[in-house]
Amino acid sequence: MALLVQKFGGTSVGTTERIEAVADLIIRTVQAGHKVIAVVSAMAGETNRLLGLAQRIDVKASARELDVLAAAGEQVSVALLAIALVKRGYPAVSLLADQVCIRTDNKFGKARIEHVDTERLAQELEQGHIVVVAGFQGRDIEGNLTTLGRGGSDTSAVALAAAVQADECQIYTDVDGVYTIDPRICPGARRLSQIPFGDMLELASVGAKVLHSRSVEYAGRHRVLLRVLSTFRPDAGTLMTYEEDPMLLPLISGIACQHGLTFLQLQALSHTDFCRLLNLLAAHNVETDMVQQYGVWPDQLTVQLVLTNSDWLQVADDVQNLLKNCRDAQHRIQANLAKLSVVGIGIRSQPDVVARIHQLLNQLNIQIWAMTQTESRFSVLMAPELVEGAAAKLHQVLFNSDN
Amino acid sequence: MALLVQKFGGTSVGTTERIEAVADLIIRTVQAGHKVIAVVSAMAGETNRLLGLAQRIDVKASARELDVLAAAGEQVSVALLAIALVKRGYPAVSLLADQVCIRTDNKFGKARIEHVDTERLAQELEQGHIVVVAGFQGRDIEGNLTTLGRGGSDTSAVALAAAVQADECQIYTDVDGVYTIDPRICPGARRLSQIPFGDMLELASVGAKVLHSRSVEYAGRHRVLLRVLSTFRPDAGTLMTYEEDPMLLPLISGIACQHGLTFLQLQALSHTDFCRLLNLLAAHNVETDMVQQYGVWPDQLTVQLVLTNSDWLQVADDVQNLLKNCRDAQHRIQANLAKLSVVGIGIRSQPDVVARIHQLLNQLNIQIWAMTQTESRFSVLMAPELVEGAAAKLHQVLFNSDN
Repeated sequence: MALLVQKFGGTSVGTTERIEAVADLIIRTVQAGHKVIAVVSAMAGETNRLLGLAQRIDVKASARELDVLAAAGEQVSVALLAIALVKRGYPAVSLLADQVCIRTDNKFGKARIEHVDTERLAQELEQGHIVVVAGFQGRDIEGNLTTLGRGGSDTSAVALAAAVQADECQIYTDVDGVYTIDPRICPGARRLSQIPFGDMLELASVGAKVLHSRSVEYAGRHRVLLRVLSTFRPDAGTLMTYEEDPMLLPLISGIACQHGLTFLQLQALSHTDFCRLLNLLAAHNVETDMVQQYGVWPDQLTVQLVLTNSDWLQVADDVQNLLKNCRDAQHRIQANLAKLSVVGIGIRSQPDVVARIHQLLNQLNIQIWAMTQTESRFSVLMAPELVEGAAAKLHQVLFNSDN
Repeated sequence: MALLVQKFGGTSVGTTERIEAVADLIIRTVQAGHKVIAVVSAMAGETNRLLGLAQRIDVKASARELDVLAAAGEQVSVALLAIALVKRGYPAVSLLADQVCIRTDNKFGKARIEHVDTERLAQELEQGHIVVVAGFQGRDIEGNLTTLGRGGSDTSAVALAAAVQADECQIYTDVDGVYTIDPRICPGARRLSQIPFGDMLELASVGAKVLHSRSVEYAGRHRVLLRVLSTFRPDAGTLMTYEEDPMLLPLISGIACQHGLTFLQLQALSHTDFCRLLNLLAAHNVETDMVQQYGVWPDQLTVQLVLTNSDWLQVADDVQNLLKNCRDAQHRIQANLAKLSVVGIGIRSQPDVVARIHQLLNQLNIQIWAMTQTESRFSVLMAPELVEGAAAKLHQVLFNSDN
């Protein structure tokens, strides 16, 4: 008998029919002798619908209230799933963040889980209940509702699995595992039956939508066994491993694309002002990527970085104000770009991998806005209409796939 | 400077535009120097939409989970109203039932408020915040979410007003006060500028939709000054008084109709089995009306009573089982009836009022299923298609209105 955390995303609970199918899936697990904590997202489209209402009132709505609003979505789906389980004769109980006691910091909209209480969970499991927990939401120390950001239900599931020391955390989604590339981009995509933690972390952070990067990070920190499965075909899947033997690791785990990015280049900037910029971004809890610095220290620096369009909208006014006070500084901003990333230890161990990537990009004659290479990741920024085509071509080259 | 509780129903917050209008209304109150606690319902139609989802899964869904589901509606509207207030530069904060600490019993779907904590409310008001509280919802002593039943947001508002000792509890709705009859039934309807507590209680319990009967009862117990106003034209309104001088009271306060009722008649019943029936209904927290008992004591009783269709559906199986074990007992059940009620102290003090009611019903040749008369209320049960016509005629007779 195992203790499993099973997480179901928005598509998996998108209609009442699908919620009933999820209930059947959970019950098959219970019938096999396991205990289950289910974590669910809002029904597909619901979070967007709710945030859309707020946008009609105020595009810069109060972050605290946006979290109160968005958390209502998960409240609906936990209740419906519990109803479906009870109807089938299996005692189930829904729990919201405050009922479990999922404590987060107070960064509304992007909160981090600090602590998960296990008392109530253990008590419900002991009574033979299937526990259905609202993903995505938490409470700060003052009892304010918080949310974990898009895809945050994955993190909820991993945090619960870590807290109750679950045997496995299963992320059910609309795809049956982690692929070498999105199969919609390249039909030759292959499913990975295993993926090393480090590569999964990189892939998640560069746009592979299958797992939320914070959940991968959290899993790694607590060594949670994480498996990605399809709700609609729950047999195959991909297991994230903590295997340390590099001989067993794939050279390239996968290719991912990310859209909706803004490129920011600042020239003739002083180091002091660069620090001010970084503090400003940190104050807004904005994550940056592809950060590069060059030029003449200390006051003729060129700095470039990439952030999401939505984060940029949030900080644009403040950044512009900051730049007004930097004499000489010039800047260039380009929104709506896309990033293509290749992830795997081959980046570091096999120089020819990077050489082949460059050769292809050169052949394709693609304008490159920025490029970064780390130990296990290669990323390049380009126009959004080019990225999927380039990714598909790259997959053929790196994985010798036919299409 | 007064402390006001202002409650806005589902129609008043039915769209984002209306939510913004409500924000403007609250701000006018604040600008006049008052402190405001706003209590809001779910956006019109939202509670039905949510419960409809549950119905598609299970028509007899778990009561606990239905409350988790339904309470999400108010969570959305408090967040949106707080966003609209903050946008206008007025600091506002939304609070859910557990954040205020609105404690109820554990009768899911029909919970009663037992206690309202004032600490958090006082603290927010002291900081100059407009407090926006989710109506309709509470928490039981174990932290389970509960709801107060349809129209329960009125009760939330009154309970908050009683707890903080507000100067007035203002119920904003889509009509501008309490009328002698629903103006849609009879254009000659008159708005009452005042109504005595006792009559308001009777009117609310027999189907006048303007106030939830439990809220009137709660207001009376705590002597809360309650005013009904229109969100769209907030000048007139009706004030509920605790006036004791009968000379100042109107003879007839109003006429109300209620649909969706089931009539239950049991013949040849023993007193013991009647007690069993009452216990059964109490266990399901079902309210009955027009209860009558006659026949030969102790085992040839005829008992008749009226309950709502939905309550009947909930208890029908259990009642049928109980009747199977009562030898000789026969029963008759008729669903979908309607009740016409006249409310006012004239019922008791002026015998000709009742005489005129009977004369009219006789002229109209209406089949009467049941009739009851108490000190200040006269009710008669009939086919639903007849009730509005009869009510309009009765209004002409009792109020000398032209139409």
